[in-house]
Formats: sequence, structure tokens, C-alpha cells
Amino acid sequence: MEKQHQRINEHIAQLNQFLEKGVAADFLKLFLDLHPYEQGQFYTNLDSAQQQQVSTWLTVEQLAHMFNDINFSQVDVAALVKVLSPKRLAAVVDAMYSDNSGQMLTYLDPETLAQYEPWLSATDSQMLEQLAQYPEESAGALMGGDFIAVPADITVTDAMQAIKEAALHIELFQYIYVIDHAGDLLGVLSFRALILNEPDTKVHEVMNQHVITVEPTVDQEVVAHVMADYNFVALPVVESGHLVGVITIDDIVHVIDEEATQDYSGLAGTDVDAPQQNPFYAALKRLPWLIGLIFLGLGTSTIIDGYDDLIAKASVLAVFVSLITGTGGNAGTQSLAVAIRRLSLGERPKLLRAFITELLIGTTVGAIAGTTIFLVVWLWKGDFILGMAVGLAMAMAILIANIAGAFIPRIMNHFGIDPAVASGPFITTMSDLTSVIIYFTIAGMFITHFMN
Amino acid sequence: MEKQHQRINEHIAQLNQFLEKGVAADFLKLFLDLHPYEQGQFYTNLDSAQQQQVSTWLTVEQLAHMFNDINFSQVDVAALVKVLSPKRLAAVVDAMYSDNSGQMLTYLDPETLAQYEPWLSATDSQMLEQLAQYPEESAGALMGGDFIAVPADITVTDAMQAIKEAALHIELFQYIYVIDHAGDLLGVLSFRALILNEPDTKVHEVMNQHVITVEPTVDQEVVAHVMADYNFVALPVVESGHLVGVITIDDIVHVIDEEATQDYSGLAGTDVDAPQQNPFYAALKRLPWLIGLIFLGLGTSTIIDGYDDLIAKASVLAVFVSLITGTGGNAGTQSLAVAIRRLSLGERPKLLRAFITELLIGTTVGAIAGTTIFLVVWLWKGDFILGMAVGLAMAMAILIANIAGAFIPRIMNHFGIDPAVASGPFITTMSDLTSVIIYFTIAGMFITHFMN
Repeated sequence: MEKQHQRINEHIAQLNQFLEKGVAADFLKLFLDLHPYEQGQFYTNLDSAQQQQVSTWLTVEQLAHMFNDINFSQVDVAALVKVLSPKRLAAVVDAMYSDNSGQMLTYLDPETLAQYEPWLSATDSQMLEQLAQYPEESAGALMGGDFIAVPADITVTDAMQAIKEAALHIELFQYIYVIDHAGDLLGVLSFRALILNEPDTKVHEVMNQHVITVEPTVDQEVVAHVMADYNFVALPVVESGHLVGVITIDDIVHVIDEEATQDYSGLAGTDVDAPQQNPFYAALKRLPWLIGLIFLGLGTSTIIDGYDDLIAKASVLAVFVSLITGTGGNAGTQSLAVAIRRLSLGERPKLLRAFITELLIGTTVGAIAGTTIFLVVWLWKGDFILGMAVGLAMAMAILIANIAGAFIPRIMNHFGIDPAVASGPFITTMSDLTSVIIYFTIAGMFITHFMN
Repeated sequence: MEKQHQRINEHIAQLNQFLEKGVAADFLKLFLDLHPYEQGQFYTNLDSAQQQQVSTWLTVEQLAHMFNDINFSQVDVAALVKVLSPKRLAAVVDAMYSDNSGQMLTYLDPETLAQYEPWLSATDSQMLEQLAQYPEESAGALMGGDFIAVPADITVTDAMQAIKEAALHIELFQYIYVIDHAGDLLGVLSFRALILNEPDTKVHEVMNQHVITVEPTVDQEVVAHVMADYNFVALPVVESGHLVGVITIDDIVHVIDEEATQDYSGLAGTDVDAPQQNPFYAALKRLPWLIGLIFLGLGTSTIIDGYDDLIAKASVLAVFVSLITGTGGNAGTQSLAVAIRRLSLGERPKLLRAFITELLIGTTVGAIAGTTIFLVVWLWKGDFILGMAVGLAMAMAILIANIAGAFIPRIMNHFGIDPAVASGPFITTMSDLTSVIIYFTIAGMFITHFMN
């Protein structure tokens, strides 16, 4: 790895020199020697004038090759395509694998897309219409149209010939799909099966009829888990029996990574993949959540302020505020994380059942944690009643934080909001508020005791 | 999906009936109709007596097929293998793809392994020795030995023949590796290149010489990101030039998912993938962290307790404790999450540079958040000095939490501890402690002012 990194870094330094001097031949010799992914990394880091220059040196096929390996979720796609004329971009789109070009086009707004549409081939226009039809981050938005489909009554030899013809423009061809004349999916044939069977066998005799498929509306994270579980490198997308596209493993690897990073960023209350080079930029990225939560936290302060008299009379109460809010927040974060993970996996347990489960978990955790702190406070402060108040408050704070952590993501999901936004810090701060109310309400009940 | 789930559930109900009645023929007809992954799901959910029964009905090849698709990180491998005799298990291991059997065997302790070793083939024994040689979760532990390697001077036709011969026992064959007589990797050839080139071309003329490779000691998460970035379905593992194994994409999908879940679980302070069916079990899973953190939180309580006199005299101080601890915790969680993510990606910025960056981020975030809360408190309470104390305390609490969040994972990583254990709740609770010290120290400086 180290040696490879070094080679790439040396290449990049030289490429920058050639680019500055404007020597196309030297530049191209070195550039085309790089892997398309490395080309894309270099290209996307150039300013638009430089990109303009490089793009005129490259052929449509070379551009398409490079674009195939760009991870569009990590670059400014609008700026990237603006460098090329609509006609040239359309040619590049035509030459790209359709799952990759589809991905790229989803990052453009409708007006920009409309500019390119007249130049696109019929196939690509159709793909665009199809993409617009399916929800974002669904199987339909992820699938590509480049797959090999053959009729059921051809022979293994004919199927092999179909593969040879398709090899030029198909990205991954581990599987061949067998369809009837209406385009309905009948079965799947592995490349291995083709190799291992007699040349004149009919494909329907050797195909696997139990094909695992997904509908185009299924969420991409569910698709990712089906492919991971079954060890698939490709998964057909079927709409009312009709084979409409295929999702390949390389797209899924990105999905798993992105979805996990989204969930993780949500729990952290900051985009963990934002570039960190510039500390002031990084600070600006983190501030909105933090400031927002400070104002939410001021709610908690206001409530404590309302109990000012109580605290003035029994200052020992202040000692346990942060312990109770902290523990409530920790319990809420735990159940939030579990709930978001289960939603990601497509699990939707029945509401009443889920509520009873969380009630039992919260009660168990709350009872054990509450009893622990009751004993500690009683022994430490030699005050049975104070121990009772702190223990009871903690048990209830845990129970409520637990239920809130489990249900807020479900409620958000119900209203179509990404539950990962219900971040850890948000739950923690919300839980501070309820914990403080519970704590001082319970303490208030024992007020005569504390007013020694 | 729904229809497929229903079909599988009906199958499972019937399979259980056949198994109870002991009718092998009916059972097998239905069982072998399932996808090996589904077979594995059914099998691993049986008790060991039932597994014993089913395993005697299956051939070694059928068992191997099913075992290939079991995700060994999610089952009790020791219990799973105990059902088979050492001799039979060794036969199954021989028949499995070597990356999968390798994965399986890593979950067994040395004594159990020693039992099976005499029965294993020479290839598998060698693989075991090789696996033991590389660290856990490294490229070496993940790779398989089933790949196609050909000499440089054979023709495309001969290479095709090699693929045909290998098709039976190779899982994925998108690529063919070209080696010299010493076993050193010279280049790689895609299956597509074979199809598109003339049959009598020599493979070294059409191979790609710039092969991206990894060393066996590289962490599996780095491998995952190389494969995701480059859109590889297979990645060769090379030790001093010598091709020692290949990592396939299906293994990497699991790695990405597992590593992300580990990081996520760490940030949440609970294993989000632990089964949740039994609420008491779920509660037990969450309690250790929570109780541990309560005792850590008691440190914070002790410190506040030490300022009892101060609070009794200026109870308004208690109003802002939870706001300052909460905000410090949130800032710490943000920088912790970013730091863990960067470590996962294999990034190790220089210590001094990283420190300066974090200092600048923390100072910026702290200054802006501190100024905000200073203004709010000043306007709300009409007390400039109180505002200054709270604002200054918050700024410093954020700065310290920020630096701690960024460096604790690096320190842990340095000592070989998984930084994901530095969970969000841990940082939050630690940060409570320092925040409270900072707050009351600063407030103490202004003590004469508060004692009105």
C-alpha cells in the first residue's frame, strides 16, 4: 500500500507540472496509466479551468471510464458536469455504465437535467424517466439497465455468445437472466453453470427458478442487507414480474458505507465525513447543532431556575442533577441507537409489542440503576429519604429516556423524516429536560424532609 | 420481497414438521430447494440434536454449500462444529471455499482446532497455519486461497481453459492473476479482457501491470475502503511480491457492515446488534455500561458536593451546571466521532498538526458558543459577571472536551485498544467531570460577586 501511495503521489506531482505547462502528450501518457478511480480523484480535485483543459484532452470513452469510478456522493456533481458541453456530457453519459450514469444524474436538479435531455440517447432518456419515477435511495434509483437477459429456449452456447457480445458494455456479468417473451423473469443462470454444462443444453434446464428479487420501491439499505446476507454480486429488480434492472455489488458497498456513516453522523450530531483540513470550516460544521442544543438546554436551565428556592434551602439537591441527567441521556442514547439500527434493517415490530418491550427494558434498567444509586446515596450521605428521591428520580428518568429514544425515531420515520437526524446529542438534551422535571418534582414532594 | 418472505416462512413451518416426524425424503426435497443462505438460517436456529439429525441427512457437499453462506460472526461456531465428527467436519472444510472455511476456523479456540487438524487436507492445514500467522481482522485473516493464477506466456485460450477447470471450486472469477515461476505477481487480467482478445494472444500482452494490492497485515477496514473506492470485486494480497491470497467482495461487504456497527455501538454505549427479543436480556446487555458510568458520574457529584457552600450561598450557579456539562458532552461526542471515523479510514495525521487543528476547532466552537451563552445569561439574569463566568466555563469545557474526544481514541489505538470502546457515553461522562471542575473553579473566582 505504502509503495502504491508513493507512486500515485509522485504521479500527481508530475501531472500537475505537465498540466501547468500544457503538454498534453506527456500528461496523457501518465494520466491514462492511472486507475480510473485515481484519475477521478485527481480530476475532481482540479479547479474548473483545469478540468476544462483536461477534459478536452480526453476522449469521450476515457472520460466515461473515469466518471464510472467517481463516487458522486462525495463531489459537487453540478460543477463537474458544467465543465462539459451538453452534447459532450450526453455522449459521456451514453458511454458510462447505466447504473453509474443514473447515479450521477440523480445529483442534478431538474433544470440542469432539462439542458442535457435533448442530447441524450433514447435509452438514457428512458432511464432518466424511470429514475424520476422511483423514490430516492430506493432499489429503483440504484439499479442499472445493463444486464444480460436471454430467452428460455436458447442453448448454453448461444448464452455464451450473448455474454461475449455484452462484455463490452456490461460492468459485472456473474449472472445471466432468463426471461419469457413478455420480459418476465423466469430464472437466473450463473456464469459457472454455463461453463460446467453441455454446450447444447437449453438454458431453462439449467437455470435456477427460485430467484431472489426486490421491488424497485424497496429502500436501498434493505437491498444492501439482502445482498450481504445472500452473498450476491448482483440482484435483479422486478416490477410486477417484469425484470426492470439489476443492482450490482459495487453500488451496494457504497450504500452500506454511506448509510452507516449517516447513522453514525446522526448519533454524533455532526457530519463525520465532512473535510477536516480547515479547522474553521470544521468548526462551522459542528456549531449549528451545538448552538441549537444550547438553546434547548436553556429550557432545562429555566426549569432548574424555577426550583431556585428549593435549591437555596437544600443545596445537596444540586449535587445529583448532573448524575441524573447524564444517566438518563446515556440510557436514551442506547435505546435510540438500537431503534435506528432496527429501522435501518427494515424491522418494524408492532407498536404495542414494541412499547411493552421498551417498557420492560426501561423498568428493568431503571430499577437496577435506581436501586444502585439509592444505596450509594444512602450510604454516602446517611440520608435514606435523599437516597429514595435520587433513586426514584433516576429510575423514572431512565424509563422515560428509554421510551423516548426508542419511539422518536419511529415517529420521525412515520412522518418521512430520516430518523438518523434524531441524533444522540438531541436525545441527551431532551432527556436532560425531562430528567430535571422528574427530579425536582420528586424532590419537591420530600421538601419538608430536606428543609432541615 | 413480501411474497418471498412468505414462501420462506411456509417452507420453514413445513420443514419443522418433517423434521419432527423424521421424514428425510420430504425434508430434503424442500430443504435443498432453499437458497444456501436460507438453509443456513434454518439450520443455525435448530437445537444441536436437530442439527445432528439434519447433518446426517445432508451430503458433505450440501453441508459445505450451506456453510459457505453462514455469517460466522453471528453464530456460535464452536457449537455448530461440535455437531459433526472431526472427520466429517474436515471433509466439509475441504469442500468449502477457502475464504469461508478460513473465516469459520478463526472462531474456534486452539484446542478445538487441534482436534480437527489431523483430518484436514494438506491445503487446509497450510491455510490454518497461514491464518494463525496474521493478526485478527487483517487482510491476511480475510483472504482466501482459491484464485486463478496463470504463467505470463500462456495464450488467452489456455487461460480460458484454466478458468473452466477452476470454475468448480472458485467462488468469484472476475479476474485472473498472472505470475512468474517464483509465484510473484506480474499482472491481472479481467475476464472481460479474455473474451475481447484474440484467442492466441499471450496473456502478458493483455494483462494490466499496475495491480493494486494489499499486504496481509493491512487492517480489514482499510481493505474495505480500497475495494469500495476502486470498485473492485477482488483484491490480491501480496507479501514481498508473492501472491498469497485474494480477498473477495462478499467478505468485504460483511466487513464494512460489521466495522460500521462496531463504531456505532461504541458511540451508543451498547451492542446495537444484540438480539432484542427478550427485554430482560436486552436490559442486561445495556446495564454494565450504564452502571459503570453512574460510578464515574459519582465523581462529578463528589466535586459538586465539594462546592456545597458555594451553591448554598449562590444557588443560581446550579441553574447552569447541566447546560455546561451537556454542551461539553455534545462537543466531545462530535470530535470523538470524527476521530474514530478517521482512524477507521486509516488516517493518522501527525500528532502536533492534529493537536493544533483540534485546538483551533475547539477554540472557535468554544468562543462562539461561549459568547452566545454569555449574552443569553447576561440578558436573562441581568448579571454581566454571571454571564462571563458561565460563558467562560462553557468555552473552556468545550475546548477540553473537544481535545479529549479527538485524542482519547488515538491514545487507545496506540495501546492496541479498539478506539470504538471510547464510547460516546464515556466521553460525555468524563467531560461532565472536567466541565464541573472548570465551572466551579471559575465561579469560585467570582465568589465575592455572587455572595450578595
